[in-house]
Amino acid sequence: MKNPILVPEIRGLLKKKRFSILKSFLDDHHEKEIAEYLGMLRPQEIWKVLELVDIYRRAEIFSYLDMDIQVEMISRSLRKNALELLMGMSHDDRADLFQHLEKEVADRLLPMLPAGERSDVIRLTSYAEETAGAIMTTDYATLLEDDTVEGAIRKIRKEAPSKETIYYLYVTNEAGRLIGFVSLRNLILAKPKRRVGEVMKRDVIYIFVDDDQEKAAQMIEEYDLIALPVVDPNERLVGIITHDDALDIIREEETEDLEKLMAISGGVEEKSYLDVPAFIHFKKRVFWVIVLGMLGLVAGIIIQKFKYILESLIILTFYMPLLNAAGGNTGSQSATVVLRAIALKELFPRDILSVIKKEFIVSALLCICLGLITYFRVLFFTSESIIPSTFSLGNIAIVISLALSIQVVWATLFGAVIPIIATKLRIDPALVSNPALTTLVDIIGISIYFAVAMLVLGI
Amino acid sequence: MKNPILVPEIRGLLKKKRFSILKSFLDDHHEKEIAEYLGMLRPQEIWKVLELVDIYRRAEIFSYLDMDIQVEMISRSLRKNALELLMGMSHDDRADLFQHLEKEVADRLLPMLPAGERSDVIRLTSYAEETAGAIMTTDYATLLEDDTVEGAIRKIRKEAPSKETIYYLYVTNEAGRLIGFVSLRNLILAKPKRRVGEVMKRDVIYIFVDDDQEKAAQMIEEYDLIALPVVDPNERLVGIITHDDALDIIREEETEDLEKLMAISGGVEEKSYLDVPAFIHFKKRVFWVIVLGMLGLVAGIIIQKFKYILESLIILTFYMPLLNAAGGNTGSQSATVVLRAIALKELFPRDILSVIKKEFIVSALLCICLGLITYFRVLFFTSESIIPSTFSLGNIAIVISLALSIQVVWATLFGAVIPIIATKLRIDPALVSNPALTTLVDIIGISIYFAVAMLVLGI
Repeated sequence: MKNPILVPEIRGLLKKKRFSILKSFLDDHHEKEIAEYLGMLRPQEIWKVLELVDIYRRAEIFSYLDMDIQVEMISRSLRKNALELLMGMSHDDRADLFQHLEKEVADRLLPMLPAGERSDVIRLTSYAEETAGAIMTTDYATLLEDDTVEGAIRKIRKEAPSKETIYYLYVTNEAGRLIGFVSLRNLILAKPKRRVGEVMKRDVIYIFVDDDQEKAAQMIEEYDLIALPVVDPNERLVGIITHDDALDIIREEETEDLEKLMAISGGVEEKSYLDVPAFIHFKKRVFWVIVLGMLGLVAGIIIQKFKYILESLIILTFYMPLLNAAGGNTGSQSATVVLRAIALKELFPRDILSVIKKEFIVSALLCICLGLITYFRVLFFTSESIIPSTFSLGNIAIVISLALSIQVVWATLFGAVIPIIATKLRIDPALVSNPALTTLVDIIGISIYFAVAMLVLGI
Repeated sequence: MKNPILVPEIRGLLKKKRFSILKSFLDDHHEKEIAEYLGMLRPQEIWKVLELVDIYRRAEIFSYLDMDIQVEMISRSLRKNALELLMGMSHDDRADLFQHLEKEVADRLLPMLPAGERSDVIRLTSYAEETAGAIMTTDYATLLEDDTVEGAIRKIRKEAPSKETIYYLYVTNEAGRLIGFVSLRNLILAKPKRRVGEVMKRDVIYIFVDDDQEKAAQMIEEYDLIALPVVDPNERLVGIITHDDALDIIREEETEDLEKLMAISGGVEEKSYLDVPAFIHFKKRVFWVIVLGMLGLVAGIIIQKFKYILESLIILTFYMPLLNAAGGNTGSQSATVVLRAIALKELFPRDILSVIKKEFIVSALLCICLGLITYFRVLFFTSESIIPSTFSLGNIAIVISLALSIQVVWATLFGAVIPIIATKLRIDPALVSNPALTTLVDIIGISIYFAVAMLVLGI
């Protein structure tokens, strides 16, 4: 957030019509920074400032404004101003804006756009959410195989201002099929008289319009691309997704994974935390809170069933929180590590045996540490008064530390295996959330506890 | 991972010296894909394949190979081959490789490099880990203010093959100070006779060499940059960080945050999950497992202190797992949501009151749902036999549901506030891990439970 002190100054300059100072301020700042300052002004003031820069820069600053402000400005503006701005915007930002406009505003504006732009908006807003089509833009530059290099550069010079990126140029045949690409770098390096078909690369990486946006982001990441072309089922080029979109997708997907991992349901909200109403926050959380609460009751029922053990050996109750904490924590850790390795494609379901082997060693080491500490803690820090004379303290120490050890090993393995099985079954592994895991581990942990007590102490 | 079936074929083609088929295979695939196939061959075989392509492509394919393979290939290669490859590599990948070579290999190779390249490697490997300097590359292209546009393009044509990116060109003065930049796009659009100083932008976004790499990634993300220039304390240009590095950093930082959130200590391992030895996994997990286990003992001590309550009212024990689950889950959820909002810069410490207000409403709604369910569950599904005649079931139902409600509200608020306070105190908020939060919430929850029981039932 920018220093709000400058805002009254900008306002003052506007009032006094000292446009030359404002202009030099605009020249000295990045579009994104300008948008941050302007965001604190009123829509009418923003319009006045925007008029000081050329249409491309105006559209870019505008695109950096919060969606709420964009919607308000477009909804209340003069037709001419809105139209000019809409024509200057990059096609994906424009489609995004249209999706946020009220229906009557969109219906009023859409017919004013030239036919080509109009059908572009309609097409771009028609793709299903979270697909490549929904996030791509249509302002890419294309060449033909038979163009000469110098002809291609001339063409780019003419078209560049309205294209999102000109660093990758896509080569299509007459039917619009994507047959290759050439980077601006290689085009500049090539001899002017050569044909594009000779200098282009044919191993072009592309994605289908219905593919998941996450796949697009992964491909951009994997191949270090500046832009990824999007094709329809007939392999005709229909759009591109740029490197900065990949970053946005990755952020969004990470938020979604994190929320699933913490038992928060529903998709990622477009608005920021404070702008989302409390009721929506509640709705996203209540389902799992209730479900896991009910599972907590199951643990309670098990305790109730074996209450005679607790009644005769209340000391076992004192170590229940430790048992729960150790199981929950070791399970969360192994689940987290495995889940992340799966997400980063370091790990595949076929590796399940190697994972079990590795986690078994890790958990064995962990349970030796925890088991020994607990054993001696019970042995040396328990007042004899709470132990009924029918039991020996040594045996009780064995029960508690043995149950704890089993719990740690089992929870670690369970945490590691669950995400792998979820992946294999094509359930999103993040859905097998951490709180669900912890609650399940608790239930089994209590059962282990009573089982060990019954076996060792014979009760 | 690529289909390994092709590997024997590649091997066969190499043996039969059918290089033309191999060459056309290499021409048809992306460097990254080729590296995936080659990764399954022996170093000597990889060398033979690499010799079929020009040095720039050879170096690029090589850079995509796993670091282990790179190290092995360089360590065992002929001097001439190694040298040629090292000269062709991008400067950041090369510095990275040198950091992984054994000291004697590095010491043997370094003197063979020309003086300029040698000092470049030494400089790039000298920056502290996780700083901008440690990840930047030095193969960027610079221009002078007085260059003409056509002169600049000529210069780029000559230098392009050895530069990581030529899409942003940085303008420096005689002292090497960064004074502006021009995109290749704008250079191509500009009139050939104009001076670079006239067409460049002066509002160049840059980062200092000692700044955190995460800041670099955030700037690239925020301003949609293809590359971010890195300057020394005197604002002299010393390197650039490219958009694909930003993606890597973001992935790495997200892994680190996630691990901290799940109480896994230490930095992110460079190797993949299966390649990290079990003992390292153990070391990263044991600290928090022990610490949180000890905190679990504290909860046990509290239970021990109030055991007389449990002894007279064993029913309270049955609802302990529910109390823990509800507190842990609601606390995790609010902590996750707030933590993510802070990471995405949607939320700042000054918003703490708004957060408390919002989370209070959310938790009130959650506790009404859970409280009512629990109240009726206790009232209608409890066998009278386990309630001592001195207590009324209605009062017990009130104790359990009231304690649960207080626990939900308090845990939600605690989970939301802790990351904000951590941010304010400049402790990494992800360090206040979820398991730690859950364990603390457990301890306080049990205390609330007993306090409510004493107050309502007068025991």
